[in-house]
This record gives sequence, structure tokens and C-alpha cells, in this order.
Amino acid sequence: MRRGYFFSLFAFLFARLVLYLRAMKSAKQIQECFESYLQGLNYSRRPDELYAPIRYVLSLGGKRIRPTFLIMAYNMYADDIERVFSTAAGMEIFHNFTLLHDDLMDRADMRRGKATVHKKWNDNTAILSGDGMLVLAYRYLAESSAPELKKVLDLANETFTGIMEGQQYDMEFETRDDVREEEYIEMIRLKTSVLLAACVQMGAMLGGATASDQELLYEFGEKIGLAFQLQDDLLDVYGDPAVFGKKIGGDILCNKKTYLYINAYRLADGKQKSELDRWAVYDGNDPDSKIAGVRSIYDAVGVKALSEKLINSYFDEAMTKLDQVNLPADRKSLLREYAGSLLNRVL
Amino acid sequence: MRRGYFFSLFAFLFARLVLYLRAMKSAKQIQECFESYLQGLNYSRRPDELYAPIRYVLSLGGKRIRPTFLIMAYNMYADDIERVFSTAAGMEIFHNFTLLHDDLMDRADMRRGKATVHKKWNDNTAILSGDGMLVLAYRYLAESSAPELKKVLDLANETFTGIMEGQQYDMEFETRDDVREEEYIEMIRLKTSVLLAACVQMGAMLGGATASDQELLYEFGEKIGLAFQLQDDLLDVYGDPAVFGKKIGGDILCNKKTYLYINAYRLADGKQKSELDRWAVYDGNDPDSKIAGVRSIYDAVGVKALSEKLINSYFDEAMTKLDQVNLPADRKSLLREYAGSLLNRVL
Repeated sequence: MRRGYFFSLFAFLFARLVLYLRAMKSAKQIQECFESYLQGLNYSRRPDELYAPIRYVLSLGGKRIRPTFLIMAYNMYADDIERVFSTAAGMEIFHNFTLLHDDLMDRADMRRGKATVHKKWNDNTAILSGDGMLVLAYRYLAESSAPELKKVLDLANETFTGIMEGQQYDMEFETRDDVREEEYIEMIRLKTSVLLAACVQMGAMLGGATASDQELLYEFGEKIGLAFQLQDDLLDVYGDPAVFGKKIGGDILCNKKTYLYINAYRLADGKQKSELDRWAVYDGNDPDSKIAGVRSIYDAVGVKALSEKLINSYFDEAMTKLDQVNLPADRKSLLREYAGSLLNRVL
Repeated sequence: MRRGYFFSLFAFLFARLVLYLRAMKSAKQIQECFESYLQGLNYSRRPDELYAPIRYVLSLGGKRIRPTFLIMAYNMYADDIERVFSTAAGMEIFHNFTLLHDDLMDRADMRRGKATVHKKWNDNTAILSGDGMLVLAYRYLAESSAPELKKVLDLANETFTGIMEGQQYDMEFETRDDVREEEYIEMIRLKTSVLLAACVQMGAMLGGATASDQELLYEFGEKIGLAFQLQDDLLDVYGDPAVFGKKIGGDILCNKKTYLYINAYRLADGKQKSELDRWAVYDGNDPDSKIAGVRSIYDAVGVKALSEKLINSYFDEAMTKLDQVNLPADRKSLLREYAGSLLNRVL
């Protein structure tokens, strides 16, 4: 009887242990584990002038959304999440490379409250360190587990190509005044969404997901990415500067043809249209008046609500895709919650 | 009797056919095949503003030395050379990417007699198209045959990293006046040699060479690369402008701390040293006088002969490495001749 009792206790504790070890990690746990892995990486070869800017950019933090998505998607299928950290690092380093070169091309002085690389060093350092980061991204991707290496590379290459196409469109749109809504959506899909989508798919792929689950998860990431970028555009106009981390009104000052701008122009009456045209060529020394002037037209024609509606619709589409993934609901709930938290939604 | 005769004739012709099909390709044949493969590649996605500069750079020609080395090295071990064309294209596209970004960083206006990308378009186009080319290089590398893919990537990644380190040193050396000869040699090893060396090793690796043969061939490529760059430096001062393809004296105008300059400064007497110092800060409007002035000191102290001696010594080392490769001499003769032709040597 006594022995039976101890045996039962042991079996119970063992089962709890297995459950604990098998427990899926929360987004926060994953972010913390991954951040400590990323900061522990040693990319300190010589010459230091090449590597110091890379360390600088990677130490600036950020929410590590892409690796978190990748690791969470993997974690839906498998528990040994450390196995995909190098792949996740490759995707995060690539993302930071795009920020470095995009900031140079956009002549942006600040990123995450700190000076950008071309401001802190110079343009050539930004070009070459960026190139170095892109190669570094591939170094980590090449550490992906052997059987899936080719698939990981193919997905990464197609994704990276798309992102550069998106950046090219983004630059072109700044000097065009006939950008259509669907062109804008395609641009942000390329520039922002495909990387999120690829991360989610890549995690699932490494975890052994079926092709159809991978496709659903790619589409989930794509829709979340669209919602996320549209929300970012909204916050750029209506956000709280303390929370947003960038100056409010940047898109307006750069004449970015965002969803808000395109629709405001479409809905504006003759007087509002000519006001928008006037602000577009404004080069006076009171940028705040331009921001306030354009925003008042946004308010008048009601593009904030329009944008929120579209964000909700992309978010709902994403959730539908996730619902269709062939896994028990409890394996999907953490990813669902994380996506919701990114869009300030409680699910 | 009659049947026996026909049989012999048939066997003879069949053997000739096999021999013909198995025959190794000359450097010229390889260059032609590869060039036609490269020009047949279709990298014409949208937006065209991203891809037009890539097509432009790849259409400017050049000697295709790196893919030729890769394919020749493969051909020493195997005959189906088309199998490595995508890998060779990856290495050639990477090389052209470095030219694009280096020209931007060096503010060079001309390359192969044509306007560079940042001159023909603008800086941002040069940055982004260059990034696009780097990703394109990886796309072709990822098509390398599956069993060797990881090894190809590891070698490419380490090589590309080294090349960026070399470019960083090159930029730093322009503003330093205490660059030592061994630092210069290490810089050109990184900036030029490791890519040639990696191409030769990669071809051999894909052809199934042993690890020790691969190592010998890497060292062969490395020494050829050093000889080649030193010769390029020599031609920059003493070459025939019509043959050289670039303006003569460019290194002198940029205060490049070449082997010639470093040794001229070391061997110069007090008067010559102060003359070199004066030219280093010259900003008058007669660049030709600077070129002639510095060259006359090179002549006086005899650095041309010194450089030729070092080129010969690297070339001889390269040949010794090739001799040690465990293959019949006739499988190695074409590579030997090609390396010799690059350095204007008849072997």
C-alpha cells in the first residue's frame, strides 16, 4: 500500500514535469530567451569599424516580432525551440539590415530614440555595415537544420527580394501623386507583410507542418502584417508620441502616400483637395502647421474610422486562417493572443 | 571479315566520340558558354527601376574570371560543367554587387568605360539595386546541388564576410599614413584573393575533390589573386590606358597605400619623402602633375622591379600548389595556362 502510494506520487510528479517541459512558451518567455541568445552572439571580428555599427543596431532592441513569430509557430509543432534560434536570428538580422539601409535612403536621423548609423558614423559605414549585416543574416540562416535548409533559403530569398521591391515602390510613391489604394496595399504587403508571413511559415516548416498548414500560416502572417502596417500608419498621425517612439506626423512631412492620404484625397471636396495640394509642396519652416493642416482634413473626411475598419477586417481574416490550421485550439491560442496584443486587441 | 572491319570502325568512332564529350573545355569555351548562360538569365521582375541597374551592371561584361575559375576547377574532376553554372553565377553576381557598392563608396564615376550606377541613376538606386544583387547572388548559390549546398554556403558566407572586411580596411587605409606592407597584403588578400580562392575551391568541391586537394586549390587561387591584384596596382601606374580600361594614375590620385607607394616611401630619401608628403595633400587642379610627380619617385627608387619580383614569387607559389594537387598533369594544364594568361605569362 505504502509502495503504491509513493509510486502514484512519483508518477504524478513525473507527469507534471513532462507537462511543464512540454508546455508551450509564452511570447514573453520566447522574447526573453531569444533576446539573451541574440545578445550572446559574438560578431566581433576585425576590423571593429565594420562590426561596431552592426552590434549597435542589434543592441537597440525592438520588439523582436519576427523571431517571436517564427519561434511561436515552431513551438505549435515542437518543443525544442532552441533548434530554430539561428534561423530566427537570421530573419531578425535581415530585418535590422533593412532598417539600417532604409534609414540611410530616407535620410532618417533617429531610430528607436537613437542616432541612425549614417548619422552616428557616416554614409559609407552605413552602406558597408549594412552589407555585412545582410551576409550575417545568411550566416545564421545557413545554420538552419540540414533537411529543411534549401526550403528555408528559398523562402528567405523570395521574401528578401519582395522586401526590396517594396522599398523601391515606397521610394517611387513619394514623388508620384497618382498612387492607388491597391498599389499602396501591395507596397506594404511587400515591404512589411511578407517578412512576417515568411517567419510564421518558416517556424511551422521547421516544426514539420503540412504544406497546407504552412500556407494558412503564411496567409495569417500576411494579413497580420497588413493590419500592423496600417495601424503603424494610423499611429504616425494619431499616436501618442511617448508610446509611438517616433515623431508624430513623419509620414505627412515626407508626403507618404499612405492609406490615410490616398483616401483623404479621394474623399476630399475641391477646397480640401487644393489644400492638400498646397501642403504637398509646402517648404516653409513650420512643419507642425503642415501636420496639423493635413490632419484636420483627415478628421473632416473621416479616414481614421475607414482605416480602423480595414485593420479590423485584415485582423479577422488572419484569425480565420489561423482557425483553419489543423491543430488543437490550445496549440494555437498563444499565437492568436500574441497577434492580438500587437494590434492592441484582447481576444 | 567485312563485319569485323565495320565493327572496328564503329568502336573507333565511338571511342573518339566519348573522348570528345569527355574533353575538358578551354577557358575561352567556358567563358563563352557561361556568358551566354548569364545573359540568358531572366531577372526582370517588377519594379523595373530595381532590376534595370542590375541588368545594366551584368551586361557590362568583364572577363568573368571568377566563374571561369570555378567551372575550370570543376571540370578538372567532372565533365557536366552546366551543373555548376548557377553556383558560378552566384559568385559572379556577388562580385558585381561589390563593384556596384564599392564604386558608390569610392565615388567612382566610370567602370568598364561606362557610367557607374550611382552616376547613371542616383545613390539610393545604387544602394537598393546593390542589395538586390546580393540577394540575387544567394538565389543562384541556393541552386547549388543539394548534397554540397551547406558547404557551398559556408564557404561563400565566410568569403563574402572577408571581402567586406577588406573593403573596410581599404577605406581606412586611404586616410592613414602608417600602413605597413603586411597590412596592405592582408587587405588585398581579403578584398580580392579570397573570392578567387573560394571559386577555385568551390568548383573542386562540387566536382568531388578531396579536402586536401580543395585546400591546395584554395591556396593556388589565393596566391594567383595576390599576384593579380599587385599586377593591377602596377598597371594602374604603368599600364597602357587603352588596354587597362581605367584611367592611369587613379590610385595615386586617391592616395591609395599600395605596395608601390608603401615601398617607395620606405626607400625614399629625405627629399623624396617630403615630396611624397607634399603630393599627398595636393589639391591643385593639375592631377596629371601629381601622377607624374609620384611616378618619377617610384622610378627613382625602383619599386616597379620590386613589385614584379613579388608578383613572380606569388605566381610561382601558386604553381607549386597546383603541382601538388593529386590529379594527372593533363587535367591541370588548362587551369595552369589560364592563370598564366591572366598574368600575361606564357607557360
